[in-house]
Amino acid sequence: MISKIWKKMTKLSWVRKIMNDIILTLKENSWNIINMSAWNPLVFIEHEQLWKKHTKLLLSSDEFVNIIWRYWSSKWYNPLIQALKKYFKDEFSYIAENENILITTGSQSMFFYAINAFAWKTQDSNFKKVFLPQSPDYTGYNSMWLDENMFISIPPKPVKVAKHSYKYKLDITNFPDIKDVGIIILSRPCNPTWNVLTDEEMQQIYDYTEWTDIPIFIDSAYGTPIPNLVYTDMKTKFYKNTIYSMSFSKAWLPWERIWVAIWNSKIIKVLENFHANLSIMSSRFWQALVASALSNWDLKEISKNIIKQKYKAKFDLVNKYLEKYMPDNISWYKHKVEWAMFVFIWFENLLVTDDELYGLLKKRGVLFVPWNTFFNGIDKNKIKHSKECLRLSITVWDEEIKKAIKILSKVVSEVYN
Amino acid sequence: MISKIWKKMTKLSWVRKIMNDIILTLKENSWNIINMSAWNPLVFIEHEQLWKKHTKLLLSSDEFVNIIWRYWSSKWYNPLIQALKKYFKDEFSYIAENENILITTGSQSMFFYAINAFAWKTQDSNFKKVFLPQSPDYTGYNSMWLDENMFISIPPKPVKVAKHSYKYKLDITNFPDIKDVGIIILSRPCNPTWNVLTDEEMQQIYDYTEWTDIPIFIDSAYGTPIPNLVYTDMKTKFYKNTIYSMSFSKAWLPWERIWVAIWNSKIIKVLENFHANLSIMSSRFWQALVASALSNWDLKEISKNIIKQKYKAKFDLVNKYLEKYMPDNISWYKHKVEWAMFVFIWFENLLVTDDELYGLLKKRGVLFVPWNTFFNGIDKNKIKHSKECLRLSITVWDEEIKKAIKILSKVVSEVYN
Repeated sequence: MISKIWKKMTKLSWVRKIMNDIILTLKENSWNIINMSAWNPLVFIEHEQLWKKHTKLLLSSDEFVNIIWRYWSSKWYNPLIQALKKYFKDEFSYIAENENILITTGSQSMFFYAINAFAWKTQDSNFKKVFLPQSPDYTGYNSMWLDENMFISIPPKPVKVAKHSYKYKLDITNFPDIKDVGIIILSRPCNPTWNVLTDEEMQQIYDYTEWTDIPIFIDSAYGTPIPNLVYTDMKTKFYKNTIYSMSFSKAWLPWERIWVAIWNSKIIKVLENFHANLSIMSSRFWQALVASALSNWDLKEISKNIIKQKYKAKFDLVNKYLEKYMPDNISWYKHKVEWAMFVFIWFENLLVTDDELYGLLKKRGVLFVPWNTFFNGIDKNKIKHSKECLRLSITVWDEEIKKAIKILSKVVSEVYN
Repeated sequence: MISKIWKKMTKLSWVRKIMNDIILTLKENSWNIINMSAWNPLVFIEHEQLWKKHTKLLLSSDEFVNIIWRYWSSKWYNPLIQALKKYFKDEFSYIAENENILITTGSQSMFFYAINAFAWKTQDSNFKKVFLPQSPDYTGYNSMWLDENMFISIPPKPVKVAKHSYKYKLDITNFPDIKDVGIIILSRPCNPTWNVLTDEEMQQIYDYTEWTDIPIFIDSAYGTPIPNLVYTDMKTKFYKNTIYSMSFSKAWLPWERIWVAIWNSKIIKVLENFHANLSIMSSRFWQALVASALSNWDLKEISKNIIKQKYKAKFDLVNKYLEKYMPDNISWYKHKVEWAMFVFIWFENLLVTDDELYGLLKKRGVLFVPWNTFFNGIDKNKIKHSKECLRLSITVWDEEIKKAIKILSKVVSEVYN
């Protein structure tokens, strides 16, 4: 007999159902399908060269032996901590101490520690929830709470900003009673929507928590300083009670599980104890390679001069094709471009659900991701917007983007008419 | 306000208190202290050569690119699964399928999934416990349960087998009512005791669960086939409802977190879902290196011809010094040597506690590990044996072993007289 926790933690979430459907479709039909659902980052020869170079450097240094065999200090690999401190000082003039930084084995594990440390039943028998101020937001958060009804969100507030463009605004008027909140989580830039919360909106969130010690976790997986796929003028401000977290997955290390949490040392301490019991440590070998690539600025150079430019070229192309091929007379809106990797499109007053649209597009040979499940914690039957959005990956070949958008245009024209 | 879970998960356990004391002592006094408490495995030049060789092979192969950038298939790195299947077939004539194997990021995370999936509150509102049939057993299990009172153990049964030697026997007569048990966990070989449960004792445990589907998790971190530090004639039998798990930490990869769980596919499925949500994946780079080292038999050769021989030389030396220097007229017993890495010594009717003995030895410049906390789930005030044992690491220099045992002999002589 399996435990309740297990049932909660492992139910086949909608994203995995869709993933399974996508994998199956690709398997049966790989040559005829354009996969606009992919999670893959773009592939750059520069990344291959970067990591090969640093692997070779490590192989020929005495540090190789230290890295793979030495025990002690399960907390972190010290050269990476020092490289990060220097990096944050140079980038943000932010002076971090050792106790401001924790390296975990990925965002999933860090959010698991954070959510279950700061929400759920507290020691004085209250029940605190996870508050996600953005809906939709990153799908990975959903599987992290051990209990049902552990989170709160608020309805999305899409605001039209041009003929075929909109932007999500933070809806502070709908924020929950702060007494019910144990932790706040958001991604900035927001995956999947192309939205970047403005500095003013961030300030509103800080103001909301001002008289409390509720931690705010800011997931910067796609943000500054690495991989830095942001095209707005966002600032990174080191407010109290915050944890900034950054990934090296989009610097071409999706599988090496190096995730950095930084800032409020009290919160870091809480995470650290959880981490020490559950995960012990990230690959020390890859911590060393990341330290090496950070220290000589290779990673920063690549982020600034290569990744960002190449993604910009991609989304310029996507925009061009959307303008060119999408029907002008129906109410489709792409989210305002504030960072790059996905395109989020809203079809206002769509006559089918997003799941049905996914099916129709699949029949024509294109896979998009319908997004209804990731409108967190809202009544989807009341808020039609939550069933009107698709996410497109922009990392496929240019020709495929063109073809996919043409098909999208055709299918939605048929649906609307 | 921090959650109850957090408090349970992160309380500064005794082992970390001792570790902190050890680290502090070493820091203040490193040149005068012999550290017999270390967790470090022996260092072999052959391991350095092995991992350097396979890293170079990978660097020069096309697979390097695939490994670091490709998304999809978060489940496992397929070549490692295939290498393991071949390995188990050649070693044990055991035919595994893909669904019999899971790679996790370490024993800690696997046991966290296992314990909280199979114990605690079940979906039909029962409360199932973790049963540890050995006491003492591996310390890492202790921090893995999310609730208090989640485990059961039974008093140790030390049986004298020679003048200064004893062995723990499995005490089946004290096993709990099976209705209360959700999962059974044991290490074989047992860390820390030098004990290896016999094939007959394993059979007794299987018989105990025969009419149930309670999983038995066998932690083979030090066992066959890698690193294979076993000197008894133990068999690995693939019974129903079991998960065997093996580590590459003792093959010199303590920090790269490659842990293999193998056998009952239903149990693997349960772990896999938990793993996919929390950890996503072990370093794919190191999975590739392990696959490479397994496939060309390098790892097996090293385990058989180097690691095992060198550890044998070490424990022969420890035995020699114990025989030579320990007082014959007091009742000390080392656990029968059934595998190597630690020595476990029992001082019968010791007039101080093991914690006090730790303190006395520290004053004379030797650090051992007192073991009372790791006698799981028993009333330590009632069972004096639990405060009479020390663990010694055998991985320090030969001269240090000699010196440490001389000091141990002197101190315990003073304590007994």
